Amino acid sequence: MTSLDGLSINLATVREQFTLAQAIDACVRQGLRAVAPWRDQVQAAGLKEAAAMVRANGLRVTGLCRGGMFPAADATGRAAAIEDNKRAIDEACALGADCLVLVVGGLPKGSKDIAAARQMVLDGIGTILDYARVNHMPLAIEPLHPMYAADRACINTLEQALDVCDALGGGMGVAVDVYHVWWDPKLAQQIARAGAAGQILAHHICDWLVPTRDLLLDRGMMGDGVIDLRAIRRMIEDAGFKGPQEVEIFSAEDWWKRPGDAVLATCIERYRSVCVL
Amino acid sequence: MTSLDGLSINLATVREQFTLAQAIDACVRQGLRAVAPWRDQVQAAGLKEAAAMVRANGLRVTGLCRGGMFPAADATGRAAAIEDNKRAIDEACALGADCLVLVVGGLPKGSKDIAAARQMVLDGIGTILDYARVNHMPLAIEPLHPMYAADRACINTLEQALDVCDALGGGMGVAVDVYHVWWDPKLAQQIARAGAAGQILAHHICDWLVPTRDLLLDRGMMGDGVIDLRAIRRMIEDAGFKGPQEVEIFSAEDWWKRPGDAVLATCIERYRSVCVL
Repeated sequence: MTSLDGLSINLATVREQFTLAQAIDACVRQGLRAVAPWRDQVQAAGLKEAAAMVRANGLRVTGLCRGGMFPAADATGRAAAIEDNKRAIDEACALGADCLVLVVGGLPKGSKDIAAARQMVLDGIGTILDYARVNHMPLAIEPLHPMYAADRACINTLEQALDVCDALGGGMGVAVDVYHVWWDPKLAQQIARAGAAGQILAHHICDWLVPTRDLLLDRGMMGDGVIDLRAIRRMIEDAGFKGPQEVEIFSAEDWWKRPGDAVLATCIERYRSVCVL
Repeated sequence: MTSLDGLSINLATVREQFTLAQAIDACVRQGLRAVAPWRDQVQAAGLKEAAAMVRANGLRVTGLCRGGMFPAADATGRAAAIEDNKRAIDEACALGADCLVLVVGGLPKGSKDIAAARQMVLDGIGTILDYARVNHMPLAIEPLHPMYAADRACINTLEQALDVCDALGGGMGVAVDVYHVWWDPKLAQQIARAGAAGQILAHHICDWLVPTRDLLLDRGMMGDGVIDLRAIRRMIEDAGFKGPQEVEIFSAEDWWKRPGDAVLATCIERYRSVCVL
């Protein structure tokens, strides 16, 4: 039986079923060794308590979700985002996370200027990067699928994310989420580029369903969609990243409605049957 | 008042309200000089009758939608696609269309191999290209938004489409639809590249709504979303394409439910207020 050391559960996957403590207990009961919580889950539990649970169970934290959301309509909004991102770095450090995942933000309200939003992202990351470096917390830009460019993230391809990393220097990398990048004709090329620079910080998995009924909350379980998960994992391992595959599924009408233990059991089974090399 | 010579109506925009004859009459009544029909609309009217209506009204046909759909699970399916594309070229010629728009197709049923699908597209276009050249019918690859990569088109960026054009040689170009490409960080660069090679064959407009409630049928009227239509038009004109802007809106819950004449009147008003330079 394949070891579960290569599998992590992003706790958004069971956010409707479990508190942080319940989710960690359920993961540990099934032999899982790694998780990735969201900040609202950590805050609900209390940061110290969350960190204690992680340590007591010997868990790896493959990432904290999420910093980012840099663009704002005015300087006050942008300054608030900077402060919030510094707190996120503190929280990621307290949890001993591998990285802080950045969902960079989309267009400010009322704006149609995506180039300006992208500049705000560059400026925002540039502003927090020294703080992240001093605290030894890698920042992982997660390029989001282009269908989120307006409202969630205006960094939409690996190439674009890596260009930002190259522009800003060390202490950064990318989170490669198959849902966001599977379609990219330059995927293999850009994964190789990221690996060569040591910039792959996380590998998120789920599946793209056909049809997809909701832009945000209709992600599929691995194996139920059209993504060749093993082919992408091979690109990523060939590029030098051997860290866990982190399951992250937002599924309002399906997986969020099932019992959490059953969801975790399915994650494990599918990891073994369609993900691991 | 801005002339309407720079505006075309893709007749999918009023497909729920009008037959081809009714749509052409309605466009002509409002002073429009260009349309782009879909093949099912033309077939319902009869090809000869459709061509006669176009000529009798002195209309420009900015494109025929659509050829493509090359990938298939077996050789029989792929051969059928070739034959269908040749018929589409014949129809485009009969209508005197500026180009045949290609929506290239996604993954064959049961496949997760997008690289193989892309090769089928390259092979398919390569197979029909001589026929298109002999008949002087330019083929316009329309890169579709990455959210359609699985089920509609595995060519998803302008860069990728232009790479295909460059690989196959003359007689081809791209249809630049703002809905599909507005998010692309390489948009300006690739529009300039396409223009320099004379490869911009069509410019389609609509808008990206926030939120978008359906992946296929929730396109917005120009001005109702987040796309900077004038900025993109400027890129396109700077690149040398001065042809009409073609309105193409699929909108099951909004514009398809309004009276067709009112939809056309709104297209004209928005063209003047947010699209034309």
